[in-house]
Amino acid sequence: MTPAYIHPAALVESQEIGSETRIWAFTHVMEGASIGTRCNIGEHCFVECGAKLGNNVTVKNGTMIWDGVILEDGVFIGPHVLFTNDRYPRSPRLQEAKSRYVGKEWLFSTLVQRGASIGAGATLLAGVTVGSFAMVGAATVVTRDVPACALMVGVPARQIGWVCPCGQPLKFEQGVAMCNHCHRQYTNQSDSIGPVLAANLAAAS
Amino acid sequence: MTPAYIHPAALVESQEIGSETRIWAFTHVMEGASIGTRCNIGEHCFVECGAKLGNNVTVKNGTMIWDGVILEDGVFIGPHVLFTNDRYPRSPRLQEAKSRYVGKEWLFSTLVQRGASIGAGATLLAGVTVGSFAMVGAATVVTRDVPACALMVGVPARQIGWVCPCGQPLKFEQGVAMCNHCHRQYTNQSDSIGPVLAANLAAAS
Amino acid sequence: MTPAYIHPAALVESQEIGSETRIWAFTHVMEGASIGTRCNIGEHCFVECGAKLGNNVTVKNGTMIWDGVILEDGVFIGPHVLFTNDRYPRSPRLQEAKSRYVGKEWLFSTLVQRGASIGAGATLLAGVTVGSFAMVGAATVVTRDVPACALMVGVPARQIGWVCPCGQPLKFEQGVAMCNHCHRQYTNQSDSIGPVLAANLAAAS
Repeated sequence: MTPAYIHPAALVESQEIGSETRIWAFTHVMEGASIGTRCNIGEHCFVECGAKLGNNVTVKNGTMIWDGVILEDGVFIGPHVLFTNDRYPRSPRLQEAKSRYVGKEWLFSTLVQRGASIGAGATLLAGVTVGSFAMVGAATVVTRDVPACALMVGVPARQIGWVCPCGQPLKFEQGVAMCNHCHRQYTNQSDSIGPVLAANLAAAS
Repeated sequence: MTPAYIHPAALVESQEIGSETRIWAFTHVMEGASIGTRCNIGEHCFVECGAKLGNNVTVKNGTMIWDGVILEDGVFIGPHVLFTNDRYPRSPRLQEAKSRYVGKEWLFSTLVQRGASIGAGATLLAGVTVGSFAMVGAATVVTRDVPACALMVGVPARQIGWVCPCGQPLKFEQGVAMCNHCHRQYTNQSDSIGPVLAANLAAAS
Repeated sequence: MTPAYIHPAALVESQEIGSETRIWAFTHVMEGASIGTRCNIGEHCFVECGAKLGNNVTVKNGTMIWDGVILEDGVFIGPHVLFTNDRYPRSPRLQEAKSRYVGKEWLFSTLVQRGASIGAGATLLAGVTVGSFAMVGAATVVTRDVPACALMVGVPARQIGWVCPCGQPLKFEQGVAMCNHCHRQYTNQSDSIGPVLAANLAAAS
């Protein structure tokens, strides 16, 4: 078992870092954050106490993973992706807002499911779930849940198509698509293709 | 009086840091920047010479506060908020643009008034003022002044409602609203609710 | 010849840093990255192996210049600008996507030509070219090539006018414009003003 690699200019206080994971310069992982095996955490990142990352996760530079964020296995998080955990944030030090921060009712979790990708500079509003193998384009603002394998772009995010787990966009003709990169096949049942893809994947693995 | 806490991996050159303020890792505060008491400045921030922060201000990770930016008491600045101070920036080292940077005519100030919140990744164009207790949503692009207590979203920012100083969105019925969190009451005089809220607050405090 | 200045809290592994260039705190320049003379690279930046920067380039804080990005002489890159080099990114550690990352077909280059400006927090999709002296506004998302001297804003980017190499927006009346800052003159040939400006510049220099 190869131990994790921690760059000398990183600050890692957590004991829960999996084998073969690499953590790069000027990144801070707090005690109480959990990171799986074979992950790559870029520079200038922050992983807060309470954040949970699975195995084989890639986090590019300058991204903050807050308490309440869960990244499942194989997720890709681009550079400067913005997670949020409070829908109506105030300075907790502001007299008029102190009562808002007595408990934890303000805190919403965010879940990114297995194999999904979040593009550079995308923003996820507090409380959303991004489905398995979905792909969120660069600079997209996600305001509600994203179906599995959906390709999302825009402000606010809208779905413009479907992507294969390998990353390739899919082109349906007469309700059928074959990925031109990995050759997986899919059928499209009107608006419910996401679950169908997921079913195919479950059957294939 | 509790002195400020400076993380060992921060660079703080300013002498004007108030008591009980905390400044976290990989953040740089330049000489000539001014920060009040009980502030919290997250990681990977930059506070430039000439920036002015009041008391009880929260600045989340990865935000740069440039010369010309003024944050009043109790302001919340989310992660990776983008302030700007030049409307038509060029490299000052570019031969064709050098004359632009001889004086300071290019520099516009930005003012965020007491208790306002700026969401994650929002952008404020050079020269705007954000009114007291306003709330700017995540990834919003502010291109003009924002009224007090206004709730702003979108690119460019548009007003979609009003928020209470405590952070809660307000719902007006027949010209009257009561905050369902802190129970402050407001009246709505057509389009000028902002000032009315401010008047109520002044009376209440 | 004045040597480059490297802040003590920066990590610079490249040997190809030109004279009079300054590199600030918490910035990492990898071996194999190339930076010309008289550049200014702000704090919290990352310059990857394979990135190429000309002379007199300004890069503001928190920007990552990836492998495949070329910045010509005199370019301005605002804070937190997002370059990308993969159109359909996946975690390379994800089983379903490994075959995508065997070769380099996924990698697209980005070119920013001489004297162009990219505003704060703008995003450039993988593979675009930004023409000489173009100006991309703050928070703009560039999805296709940008003509020389074009002024671009919005999501996705659209052209709203023209700018002079000195940075000033141009106002055409009856097909002619004179910059009210540097007094350069231009003629507008219907939709092809970009090339005309470039021709004038070539003649003037």
